Amino acid sequence: MVELTRTPERHRHVPRAVQQLRPALYISSYFGLILAVAMIVPALLDAADGRESWAVFAVSSGGVFCVSVLGVVSLRQPMPAFTPRFGFLLTTVLWLVSGVIGALPFWLSDLDMTRAAAFFEAVSGLTTTGATVLSELDSMARSYLLWRSMLQWFGGIGIIAIGLFLFPFLRIGGMQVFRTESSDRSEKALPRLVSITRALCLIYVLLTLLCAIVYAALGMSLFDAICHAMTTLSTGGFANHDRSFGFFEDPRILWAAVFFMALGAMPFVLYVEILVRGRFTMWRDWQVRTFLAGLAVVITVLALWLEATRNISILSAFTQSAFNVVSVVTTTGYASDDYAYWGPFAYGVFYILTFIGGSSGSTAGGIKVYRFIIVFQALRRAFTRLVYPSAVQPLRFGERVIDQDVYDSVVIFFIAFFLVYGLTILALSLAGQDFITALTGAQTALTNVGPGLGETIGPAGNFAPLGEFELWLLSFVMILGRLEIMTVLILFTPVFWRD
Amino acid sequence: MVELTRTPERHRHVPRAVQQLRPALYISSYFGLILAVAMIVPALLDAADGRESWAVFAVSSGGVFCVSVLGVVSLRQPMPAFTPRFGFLLTTVLWLVSGVIGALPFWLSDLDMTRAAAFFEAVSGLTTTGATVLSELDSMARSYLLWRSMLQWFGGIGIIAIGLFLFPFLRIGGMQVFRTESSDRSEKALPRLVSITRALCLIYVLLTLLCAIVYAALGMSLFDAICHAMTTLSTGGFANHDRSFGFFEDPRILWAAVFFMALGAMPFVLYVEILVRGRFTMWRDWQVRTFLAGLAVVITVLALWLEATRNISILSAFTQSAFNVVSVVTTTGYASDDYAYWGPFAYGVFYILTFIGGSSGSTAGGIKVYRFIIVFQALRRAFTRLVYPSAVQPLRFGERVIDQDVYDSVVIFFIAFFLVYGLTILALSLAGQDFITALTGAQTALTNVGPGLGETIGPAGNFAPLGEFELWLLSFVMILGRLEIMTVLILFTPVFWRD
Repeated sequence: MVELTRTPERHRHVPRAVQQLRPALYISSYFGLILAVAMIVPALLDAADGRESWAVFAVSSGGVFCVSVLGVVSLRQPMPAFTPRFGFLLTTVLWLVSGVIGALPFWLSDLDMTRAAAFFEAVSGLTTTGATVLSELDSMARSYLLWRSMLQWFGGIGIIAIGLFLFPFLRIGGMQVFRTESSDRSEKALPRLVSITRALCLIYVLLTLLCAIVYAALGMSLFDAICHAMTTLSTGGFANHDRSFGFFEDPRILWAAVFFMALGAMPFVLYVEILVRGRFTMWRDWQVRTFLAGLAVVITVLALWLEATRNISILSAFTQSAFNVVSVVTTTGYASDDYAYWGPFAYGVFYILTFIGGSSGSTAGGIKVYRFIIVFQALRRAFTRLVYPSAVQPLRFGERVIDQDVYDSVVIFFIAFFLVYGLTILALSLAGQDFITALTGAQTALTNVGPGLGETIGPAGNFAPLGEFELWLLSFVMILGRLEIMTVLILFTPVFWRD
Repeated sequence: MVELTRTPERHRHVPRAVQQLRPALYISSYFGLILAVAMIVPALLDAADGRESWAVFAVSSGGVFCVSVLGVVSLRQPMPAFTPRFGFLLTTVLWLVSGVIGALPFWLSDLDMTRAAAFFEAVSGLTTTGATVLSELDSMARSYLLWRSMLQWFGGIGIIAIGLFLFPFLRIGGMQVFRTESSDRSEKALPRLVSITRALCLIYVLLTLLCAIVYAALGMSLFDAICHAMTTLSTGGFANHDRSFGFFEDPRILWAAVFFMALGAMPFVLYVEILVRGRFTMWRDWQVRTFLAGLAVVITVLALWLEATRNISILSAFTQSAFNVVSVVTTTGYASDDYAYWGPFAYGVFYILTFIGGSSGSTAGGIKVYRFIIVFQALRRAFTRLVYPSAVQPLRFGERVIDQDVYDSVVIFFIAFFLVYGLTILALSLAGQDFITALTGAQTALTNVGPGLGETIGPAGNFAPLGEFELWLLSFVMILGRLEIMTVLILFTPVFWRD
């Protein structure tokens, strides 16, 4: 654990935010060390397979290790006070640096990837988006497939931790509604924090193992089972096959994926409650109930529509509907079929679903269920107030009363979301992308889902045809989406850099 | 003017909102009389042209007149207190009844229109949307063309009046920020109200006349000049030719239209200020400044892009860019060219522009400039507060401070807007419309722009291929959009009908 003590302000002339770049990079160096060690695994795998690409990972690992050690040694200094400002900077720097490190093997590989493509693939992993520029996955060296899965797996636990400990403290996107003792930053909270973190990691590992075992038992190869378990729990969506989950014929595999994707999109703090305190509060959680009820409705409607309009059995309709709906809503992004060709209703449904997202404090992205709960309540209150202007009707989230600060943050999230969305559509259009690609590419990156719609980036396509500008832009947008937008956006405002 | 006195509550068992249907219909009967008289004009025109369709308008006029007189006589009773509740009901009933009356000649005509199509065309007129199911306009009896223009013209002045007098009182969509002495409902305000209304009508008539004279001077036929002046000032967008403004070769006509469309999208209260008080405050108005500056930027960027990518002169590029951008942003919906074929950037730009809209208290629809000003300020404040949580930074609109109530209403407008938008996309998709038609059809109806994008409802297409369900739905959505959404939506909540 990094020491959190105050530093005297020695350099009055350098703005505080700039000074804090150094400690942010210092902490990032530790993450570099972790990634360097992690790279040894794909290197060993390729060595065992007799593939030459083991060298790519060995070199990357060595290089990253050296630079990280250099960083740890040279950037060491007393830590600054952990202010929100430092939180914004650290989070963004962490994801950027990890993206660059994660991209290194892709760039050095013989996969013929530009720097933009390599960075895009790595960021798509770390943000658990799952959009890919790679194809011919089935014949690819297994190291790359493993590395993609590992990136998503790291990204998944990373975002859970940040969602639990940091965002509530940063008051981003209304996450402060989940402020509990676990987001307490005081000295005496540290032991609790460590024990919760340990429980969280344990749960994440156990669920992943369980998922891998189930996948393997249902007939996946061991390698596929491990990789897909990592990208399922992290709601990442990278698959080892060009046909994604369409590769697996057994509907039981699809249903297993449905189950574990849904688990990945639940608030992980509830699992901690179960493990640490033995309290099973899942069903009392508003967000979980709304999420599951909503899923059930959408899956049923779409399945009935599929059965009525396409020549398939109702069972098969339910499987296809459940798998693809859950995949999109949990922002995983696997596909079992090219749902863009199911017909206009499915097209519209998947476009809207891409916005929704999972629960807070999960590995899922998107706008997220609790924000919808809050704005719908605000809408209901507005109706009452139009008829009875002096009516007092607090917004509620379960048994909790939503205070103004939370509501304001949620609203600001929506504003920032649609602003970034609109600008990204314009930028992609300006770069010459067709309308559907621009519209859904911007959307799928911002919500960290993965596939878009249309010929190019639809469930059956990939992002390789996009230009370098588009890939850089979408990498940036994925990071924006992953870090709840404002965390990154604020780094572009003067108020952040002024003292 | 209708008497506004309180009625004793005699029928305790009937909810107040239901009781108020009667006075709402009573007032609507007066509007029926006006429309019945107005129908005489197209009847006379066709009689002069020797077209048989004069009878359609004569019969419609007679029928509407009789029913309206019946309504005025039989529904007479002391007026209820003018509560917000009555305001919501009255406004919605007025637009619905006018829609039915306006649709009558279309339905009785030999144009072979279903009830849905006739209602759609009339509502598209009264809401100044300008989406049409009609084609072969160039050979159509002039009565229909005139009637369409008249509906838009009436709809235009109607929405200005309601935007000025009623919406601020109803506290809808943040319009209460424009609450001035003119929205005062007390007895002593009545003379002022009458004088402002008179000034408003005078300005509307004068500007329309001026526009018609300019159009005629630039070479339009007298009939075209009058009709297009009515649909320009009302930012309606119905044209007399299948090619819309593409029919007119002279770029000066396009620039004249640009000028008068922009005039129609400004806050009309500023014209009243000029006329009544001799105060020229246009340039000090934040909304006007932002609106014009934004237009200038977008027009320039698009013109430069057009000149660079298409083989046209810079002058011609500016003309095409200015005409179509202003047409969409003012929510008029004329087209001089099928901009959907200009290329991907234009496609993206026009999609985004369709949301924007004009000024409050104008004839324009859309989200409207002042709402963007308010949310951008909220966003800026949010950045400051993330760094300095206790910072106090009021939202401002020009010299006015935006209070919480206004900001809340603006936010609720956005929530309701995107909720209705999403549901309409789903409904249109379910009805089997392709994605682009569903996406932009829902949008263009809700923002009252007119044309969408894509093969079917793009600038060169029309709404005739849509099914009856879609036309009813979009008629409803146009009314929602025109009445700032919440006004209509609240009629579907239990809280409205309970006492």
